[in-house]
Amino acid sequence: MRILGLDPGTATTGYGIIDVIDGEMQVVTYGVIATPAGLPTPARLLAIHEALQALLTTYQPDAAGVEELFFGRNITTAISVGQARGVLLLALAQAGLPVAEFSPPKIKEAITGYGKADKQQMQMMVRNLLNLAETPRPDDAADGLAVAITCYQYHRYSSLMAE
Amino acid sequence: MRILGLDPGTATTGYGIIDVIDGEMQVVTYGVIATPAGLPTPARLLAIHEALQALLTTYQPDAAGVEELFFGRNITTAISVGQARGVLLLALAQAGLPVAEFSPPKIKEAITGYGKADKQQMQMMVRNLLNLAETPRPDDAADGLAVAITCYQYHRYSSLMAE
Repeated sequence: MRILGLDPGTATTGYGIIDVIDGEMQVVTYGVIATPAGLPTPARLLAIHEALQALLTTYQPDAAGVEELFFGRNITTAISVGQARGVLLLALAQAGLPVAEFSPPKIKEAITGYGKADKQQMQMMVRNLLNLAETPRPDDAADGLAVAITCYQYHRYSSLMAE
Repeated sequence: MRILGLDPGTATTGYGIIDVIDGEMQVVTYGVIATPAGLPTPARLLAIHEALQALLTTYQPDAAGVEELFFGRNITTAISVGQARGVLLLALAQAGLPVAEFSPPKIKEAITGYGKADKQQMQMMVRNLLNLAETPRPDDAADGLAVAITCYQYHRYSSLMAE
């Protein structure tokens, strides 16, 4: 099973793709979808959509997880991230992928067992769970991998419950 | 010149399309893009994207205007509208249309000359400007037409300035 995790942000979206073979997780790829600053919004959304479509075509994941937004304050930021998130969800739907959404505390709990884990704890666990020599960079890409791991655990749990 | 106006909302997006021939505005069509309540978000965004693509294919507008979001309060609503708005802007960009965005006070000023006009004043002016016997229904569709008129005035003003 191949799983894509996405962490949509204002300027960049982190992604991580993992394979699960005989219950073992391994990294396929990770990185960020970044768009040039100053690009008009419609062109920026077009670039994000095309970048994700290219990833989906290249790596053909079976399922996707997306981090839920969690803003307390800035409404303008929320709208901007919402717009990027909309075109990401659209590309996933167009590819016919099952999509699950996870809140930041859920992701932290899935990765570390603790819903209030800090960034350092999260990165250490992502490294350990995926057997990596170094912490994935940039942070957004590590976050994308964390979402992919969470999504795998969610699917494993769902299939156990269904048996 | 054919202009599409969009008013993106949480559950429905109002649209209006006008033709401008020898400086005279006339209605081509108007209505709402609505998605069934309870549809999962990715499927909902897919439906919105397909509905707008169908409108663009059918009516082939030359330019589009989109109402800017203007929320003071609810962050969850802002994200939800932001997501819908993202796929609308994407469809416009994919069709290669020039897109202009207008805040609610700008639209009110363009239609009535007064940035704090109420809904009734707005609807009356839309009806008069477009020579309609009745106020377009539902309200979201009338709002879409108001955005289209604003967009026409913006393009007329821009071209006057460029001369």
